[in-house]
Amino acid sequence: MFKINENYLKLPGSYLFSTIAKKVNAYQEANPEKDLIRLGIGDVTQPLAPSIIEALHGAVDEMAAAETFHGYAPDLGYEFLRNAIVDGDYRSRGAQIEADEIFVSDGAKCDSGNIQEIFAQDNKIAVCDPVYPVYVDTNVMAGRTGTYDPKSETWSDVIYMPCTAENNFAPEFPKEVPDIIYLCFPNNPTGSTITKDQLQGWVDYANKNGAVIIYDAAYEAYISEDDVAHTIYECEGARTCAIELKSFSKNAGFTGVRLGYAVVPKDLTCGDVKLHDLWARRHGTKYNGAPYIVQKAGAAVYSEAGKAQLKEQVGYYMNNARVIYEGLKDAGYTVSGGVNAPYIWLKTPDGMSSWDFFDHLLEHANVVGTPGSGFGPSGEGYFRLTAFGNYENTVKAIERIKNI
Amino acid sequence: MFKINENYLKLPGSYLFSTIAKKVNAYQEANPEKDLIRLGIGDVTQPLAPSIIEALHGAVDEMAAAETFHGYAPDLGYEFLRNAIVDGDYRSRGAQIEADEIFVSDGAKCDSGNIQEIFAQDNKIAVCDPVYPVYVDTNVMAGRTGTYDPKSETWSDVIYMPCTAENNFAPEFPKEVPDIIYLCFPNNPTGSTITKDQLQGWVDYANKNGAVIIYDAAYEAYISEDDVAHTIYECEGARTCAIELKSFSKNAGFTGVRLGYAVVPKDLTCGDVKLHDLWARRHGTKYNGAPYIVQKAGAAVYSEAGKAQLKEQVGYYMNNARVIYEGLKDAGYTVSGGVNAPYIWLKTPDGMSSWDFFDHLLEHANVVGTPGSGFGPSGEGYFRLTAFGNYENTVKAIERIKNI
Repeated sequence: MFKINENYLKLPGSYLFSTIAKKVNAYQEANPEKDLIRLGIGDVTQPLAPSIIEALHGAVDEMAAAETFHGYAPDLGYEFLRNAIVDGDYRSRGAQIEADEIFVSDGAKCDSGNIQEIFAQDNKIAVCDPVYPVYVDTNVMAGRTGTYDPKSETWSDVIYMPCTAENNFAPEFPKEVPDIIYLCFPNNPTGSTITKDQLQGWVDYANKNGAVIIYDAAYEAYISEDDVAHTIYECEGARTCAIELKSFSKNAGFTGVRLGYAVVPKDLTCGDVKLHDLWARRHGTKYNGAPYIVQKAGAAVYSEAGKAQLKEQVGYYMNNARVIYEGLKDAGYTVSGGVNAPYIWLKTPDGMSSWDFFDHLLEHANVVGTPGSGFGPSGEGYFRLTAFGNYENTVKAIERIKNI
Repeated sequence: MFKINENYLKLPGSYLFSTIAKKVNAYQEANPEKDLIRLGIGDVTQPLAPSIIEALHGAVDEMAAAETFHGYAPDLGYEFLRNAIVDGDYRSRGAQIEADEIFVSDGAKCDSGNIQEIFAQDNKIAVCDPVYPVYVDTNVMAGRTGTYDPKSETWSDVIYMPCTAENNFAPEFPKEVPDIIYLCFPNNPTGSTITKDQLQGWVDYANKNGAVIIYDAAYEAYISEDDVAHTIYECEGARTCAIELKSFSKNAGFTGVRLGYAVVPKDLTCGDVKLHDLWARRHGTKYNGAPYIVQKAGAAVYSEAGKAQLKEQVGYYMNNARVIYEGLKDAGYTVSGGVNAPYIWLKTPDGMSSWDFFDHLLEHANVVGTPGSGFGPSGEGYFRLTAFGNYENTVKAIERIKNI
């Protein structure tokens, strides 16, 4: 008689954004006349940039003729894309990463969920609290997190690094040394980040303690301050301790196009085993490449025209961020984030719980946000709004919140 | 100090098709003047059908305007595609499958590699021998297969079901009852299949013994005989014991487009847990949906024009299959497959090993095939050729093999 993976049953509730979607759908069904504004899930709203559309059409045309048709992609991704990534995201920043250390994938969510597979089951993970729920949830599924305490909403074998107003949303080195450290900067959900010097401190800490850093840099394109690193490989020694995950979702609006990549440097080893080889084996065995047309669209992101158009798109969203940040501040809210990230993190008023504030905003302003507690226990009493709406709706949403 | 997943180190060699690619590249570099014909990896060569190209272009245009832009896809896939799948692949065959039992993915390779995650680690798997290597390899990575014996090339905790000329390439019920049974019909690599009555026997066996069947039907479009089931859900009782995996790679040439789906019926339970809920949780947590433009292309597969064009495309490849089958038979080879599948399975001549025959064919005919032993120990002494080349090359390859 077959048996199931019991670890799945330990997961409390459903995936955060599925829960939100269900709540919102129920509200909308009960109130079909209400015009909801969604500043919850981090999904973009602006259309793909013209140079990306052009690349997509061109690639589709290639697929229409036998001479230019593309079947299975190379395991690691097409060289044209890996070279563009290396030039655009690493060499130009003085970071030493080679094309064969880039693994093209269908997005950072998959990579950040799958990466734990190449590690032993008894490794101990550390996560910022609050943070993107996929890191912990996928380790729960793998049986790496011990038992769940519903009261504290924490797992016995996970090291939580609180990021709250008290420490300026920057994690401190944990008392117990972890094996795997998930870092996400600019951070989802708090919208805060750390300086390059602080990041160097984490690289030194990992190298000293034999820990590996999973560095999620999905929001890198939103960095506006000079002393913030765009890649962890700007830090000395990162090649021996860090895997970096990147997404095309937020810098280029690919949430519905699906493209990302992982960087696994060949200097990152455990004994004489290169993590690069393990990830290559996983990639080759369980994955079959991103679509050719999507990889061509990815390359267009690095073209001169693409870069200019996307700089404008990021600017558009960052203007929304400013509208939200300043609007809420004017209305008396305590807010952070929004400077190096498209997320605004606010303290719920009057000691409201995150989910109570979610319901409050949904009912009284018809605005959908994300409860901070969904990202970890230290997110309780906070709330996330995203700058990924369109400008008009963003302005309207903030007016509505002000008028509650 | 972090530790790696030691199970990865148990895997012998690299993934079969990576090994072949390396060998072929080395040969081509050493002999740049040679015109290689690739009938190895099961990659298609015909361009996408016009109705699919049209759907892709249309969807790309939608992504260019804010009003019609699509961000994150629904967890299970777009309803327009799931409904088309249900109508086209199930209801039309009298099989009772609902749209919310369909999980759209980026391909059957990923699904067949990932599906084992929802099962307990001490489940015992059974596989046809030979078979697509992903089933065993992904279970090795999960630590489910025991120890490897290099001499027999088998794992201590895997139940092998030999499929050879002696049993007409149809597996027999194993002596030891497995928990998870991987079946792939029409079979990759042997190109053989079993009748609907035989498949009903497997469904009854699984229900009687509390086993679950992972049914890989990636080659369903190539079935030409009437007494072969197009889906396992044509069999009575399959809803309580079978997960079906489907691909768009072979019926529609999507190897470089990436689309597939898994069917997990809600009647398939372990105690009071629905496997459907576990897979939904995995899908929602570790995956972020197939690209909108690709799902639109998938829907075009089920349009009237799409169906007609793809019937022609499958016919083109099946004509190649006939050329290979008859050509090799004329040349004195013992061949099978090629009737309900795009694969021709041949006995290597003069007791040659599969890899020796691979080298022999590469050097003397400049034809790339796939060694049968790469698919399992009972594949030793066999060799796979695919009908996915273009017609001219296929004819040329067979002439070359005849003239060795």
